[in-house]
Amino acid sequence: MKKLRICNAQINCRVGDLYGNAGKIIDNIQTAKESEADIVTFPELAICGYPPEDLLLKPYFVHENIKALDEVVKNTRGITAVVGFVAQNDGLYNAAAIISDGEIKGVYKKVFLPNYSVFDESRYFTKGGSEGLIFELNGVRFAVNICEDIWYASGPLVKQAMGAGAELIINISASPFYTDKIRVRENMLKTRATDNLVMLSYTNMTGGQDELVFDGGSMIVDCLGNVIARAKRFAEDIIFADLDIESVVRRRLYSPQRKLEKSMFTHDVGSVKTVKITTAVAARKSRKIAAAAQEPMGSVEEVYHALCLGVKDYVTKNGFAKVVIGLSGGIDSALTAAIAVHALGAKSVVGVTMPSRYSSDETKSDAGKLAKNLGIRLITIPIDGLYKKYLDDLKDIFGDTATGIAEENLQARIRGNMLMALSNKFGWLVLSTGNKSEVSVGYCTLYGDMVGGFSVLKDVYKTVVYRLSGYINARSGTQVIPDTTIQREPSAELRPDQKDSDSLPDYDTLDKILHYYIEMDFCLEEIVETGFDLELVKKVVRMVDVNEYKRRQSPPGIKITPKAFGKDRRMPITKVSI
Amino acid sequence: MKKLRICNAQINCRVGDLYGNAGKIIDNIQTAKESEADIVTFPELAICGYPPEDLLLKPYFVHENIKALDEVVKNTRGITAVVGFVAQNDGLYNAAAIISDGEIKGVYKKVFLPNYSVFDESRYFTKGGSEGLIFELNGVRFAVNICEDIWYASGPLVKQAMGAGAELIINISASPFYTDKIRVRENMLKTRATDNLVMLSYTNMTGGQDELVFDGGSMIVDCLGNVIARAKRFAEDIIFADLDIESVVRRRLYSPQRKLEKSMFTHDVGSVKTVKITTAVAARKSRKIAAAAQEPMGSVEEVYHALCLGVKDYVTKNGFAKVVIGLSGGIDSALTAAIAVHALGAKSVVGVTMPSRYSSDETKSDAGKLAKNLGIRLITIPIDGLYKKYLDDLKDIFGDTATGIAEENLQARIRGNMLMALSNKFGWLVLSTGNKSEVSVGYCTLYGDMVGGFSVLKDVYKTVVYRLSGYINARSGTQVIPDTTIQREPSAELRPDQKDSDSLPDYDTLDKILHYYIEMDFCLEEIVETGFDLELVKKVVRMVDVNEYKRRQSPPGIKITPKAFGKDRRMPITKVSI
Repeated sequence: MKKLRICNAQINCRVGDLYGNAGKIIDNIQTAKESEADIVTFPELAICGYPPEDLLLKPYFVHENIKALDEVVKNTRGITAVVGFVAQNDGLYNAAAIISDGEIKGVYKKVFLPNYSVFDESRYFTKGGSEGLIFELNGVRFAVNICEDIWYASGPLVKQAMGAGAELIINISASPFYTDKIRVRENMLKTRATDNLVMLSYTNMTGGQDELVFDGGSMIVDCLGNVIARAKRFAEDIIFADLDIESVVRRRLYSPQRKLEKSMFTHDVGSVKTVKITTAVAARKSRKIAAAAQEPMGSVEEVYHALCLGVKDYVTKNGFAKVVIGLSGGIDSALTAAIAVHALGAKSVVGVTMPSRYSSDETKSDAGKLAKNLGIRLITIPIDGLYKKYLDDLKDIFGDTATGIAEENLQARIRGNMLMALSNKFGWLVLSTGNKSEVSVGYCTLYGDMVGGFSVLKDVYKTVVYRLSGYINARSGTQVIPDTTIQREPSAELRPDQKDSDSLPDYDTLDKILHYYIEMDFCLEEIVETGFDLELVKKVVRMVDVNEYKRRQSPPGIKITPKAFGKDRRMPITKVSI
Repeated sequence: MKKLRICNAQINCRVGDLYGNAGKIIDNIQTAKESEADIVTFPELAICGYPPEDLLLKPYFVHENIKALDEVVKNTRGITAVVGFVAQNDGLYNAAAIISDGEIKGVYKKVFLPNYSVFDESRYFTKGGSEGLIFELNGVRFAVNICEDIWYASGPLVKQAMGAGAELIINISASPFYTDKIRVRENMLKTRATDNLVMLSYTNMTGGQDELVFDGGSMIVDCLGNVIARAKRFAEDIIFADLDIESVVRRRLYSPQRKLEKSMFTHDVGSVKTVKITTAVAARKSRKIAAAAQEPMGSVEEVYHALCLGVKDYVTKNGFAKVVIGLSGGIDSALTAAIAVHALGAKSVVGVTMPSRYSSDETKSDAGKLAKNLGIRLITIPIDGLYKKYLDDLKDIFGDTATGIAEENLQARIRGNMLMALSNKFGWLVLSTGNKSEVSVGYCTLYGDMVGGFSVLKDVYKTVVYRLSGYINARSGTQVIPDTTIQREPSAELRPDQKDSDSLPDYDTLDKILHYYIEMDFCLEEIVETGFDLELVKKVVRMVDVNEYKRRQSPPGIKITPKAFGKDRRMPITKVSI
């Protein structure tokens, strides 16, 4: 009976931490060995972390990555490991080393290099072409491919499985999160498995890296499209499965569809090189490998966890022990604080309330309630004295101009200055609290409420802010975010009786228009056709266009939609809109 | 006698201004006609401006670009025009329309798509393959290629000229400036012309677009490698040449090297399609076309003009009438102000001096002298009262902590807040004044002196700041930037007797290390080998690495080196340095 025990090690790598990542890989190889796995797999570019960006342009970085891989190679006695690294010969390759018994048996080089959305792989890598590399381990034929490679029905997999007869395909990935992507991913993997009658091992990265969160959710799929093992989302995990390769052989022999497809198969599989691997596995105990069952998460739940992991990793990987958040009493800062507490613990979160003459009693009280509910320290710094002093100092220059944006922004910037003073004094990282709706239309103050090292809700529309807040309260079974905060009409409180609705349409409307314009790239007419007023659409689109300069100077934030601001949407500042 | 009158129209396009750019193209076609040119050429992507970035992902944008091209087509009676636009069929192409007498005669699609440095063309475009498209106009065989295409000795040009016999190659470009690039460009063009015995028309874009300046310098090169016409640098221009195509024919027939090379020529030229163009040119008057001679600029001079054009176009294309600059009395702000005055005129520049308790009498007086020399308005806003008020308001929270960075940055941020208040009140754009040396090592305050819409010296090392200041004074024959400013030891003046040299090595040393690390991607050991102390190099490299977060939130600035911060150098914030 052809059997294989496979292990997917879903690890959280740090970009640039070549030897640290190698150490983590070695630890996981040890765990896999102890569980008597035949083969253990790691995510794409596990040695250098993903995405390494322009670190790849530094020759010594690539050189050291190969030395770090060598450390891993030394630690593969009695096991086979598939490890993502940067290979180099006449160019750089996004590669996987297939290592066994202290030796690199082969190197697979990624063929499909994504160069869209947040990806820039053509900037660095040369297209590989090692789909014809097949390995034979304990009589089982397997092949490796990398992330994007598996997203194409006619990609390397078909050559490997249908053409060259691989019974197991190992895909190593660093697939970033957006809402519901896991469902797309899982459906695709199941289809690939059944289309090609092949076992699939899919190992994803986990962890936050600047704008990206890698959501894990690695899986092992059998040739009938059943998920037989599933790793945690948003956390490190290691999963195992005993693969019944015999079933693949049998299916392939007796499936009438397979026969028909084989007879029609005209792909040029080119040359196939088979590398035999014989590993001296210690006598195997008949240990039961449980297929870990993970309940699939709902959309709101997974967004929540993505935001928590994004915050945790940005803060801790950049060496901060605490964060500081300006608490206005509004829902955005409340949600940001709740996420930060989940991610870092209440002791690591400091709230600052900075009331002005325009702050209502209710918002002031809500800031206090929130801090109490979350169990975080709250600092109060009234800003009215400073605001008055600024106005005095500017009186002669401002003359008899009407009070307006300049005065409103002054208040936001005093608060920004206070947060940064605390940051500089105590080494706390400032989390900014603006949501995607505000950031889209520029309803935020540059160097004011936009200050911070990380912008937690930058890709979260206001309507989703409400959903997340409801989820948090429901989840905890108590009022974490005060009902008064959730119910109150949104206001920036920078002038008397100000309401967001003075400047913006209601958020249900706004968010829909923004979705069509930003994520769908609809033109004015197309948005109007979905049922909105032309003048309103024009106004919103114009606000998005003219505020590119603000977004360019905003802190990074966590991508949770198919198109986030940042690396994902690269718009000129200087432009004429049509 | 085969002759052709060619005209290169070096225009300043606006990104996204499809119909505006089309109008400018039509105006230049008219000028070319009046000078009885047979053919007129425009820069790469002249219809949509360069680089259009993610505007290209909007289907209606591409659609409108084709409609705008149609407007141009209608205006080509009696002349042939080569116009850059985005072509679309099964993908998007960076293309050139060859238009004549109201008809598109052919479309060339760029083959070599740059996807390095500031370029992301693989993100948008499909690789073309229309090198085999040859046009015959008045018996002269010509072919077109686009920007990057001509930078490869074995690129489309060799197929077109050597293989298919084109006598004239028209290259349309949007080639961004960095120091001395023009010399590389000119040498390359001369070599291509002589290698292939071909006439070359090279039309570059001019103008500023966010981080980039297109420096113009279009040229027409004969088949002996002589530049027979040369356009202005950093300005719109239109140049003409009467091409003696007969000389190409003669050279090709009688050159022994050509015969030898032809006999060895094994490139697969594929199929060649020749399109005949007959234009009803009005009877030509024997007008003398002067080859405009332009003195080549020195490095410092061209950097100065690049900065001036970058500022002018960023400010005016974004619709601002005035800029405001914080004048510290130091050299960076003085140089920024001088550039702004050159770019926009003294009436469009406002200086603000914001002295504190740490400002010396000399710097205060220098700010005044500079404003007087430049003839700009100077506003004085002392910040000590506000600084004192902030310290009071923070006294309880700061407790008995030692005075340090928090207090220093407070001052810079008060100044930033003041500049933004003026910006918001009067609609002035803030120009920030930090240089590349400071921005590299983070010797600057985020939301403080880093505030602004545009960062003029972001890619200018401090040592170059001195050279530029000297150049400005020499150029004007008077002391524009006060000698005292140039002579004084640099200081941020944020604490008593502070000097830059307290925190940084001297700028000669620093700039060399930065150059090796940033532009050359040297590792520590390689930098040390050039003659620097290991500990010092480590310290500088560390400062560069840990300040990525500040640069990510800095305003865009003008690229003048081969590797500028911004789109040109894409480093992760979260990373472990090796």
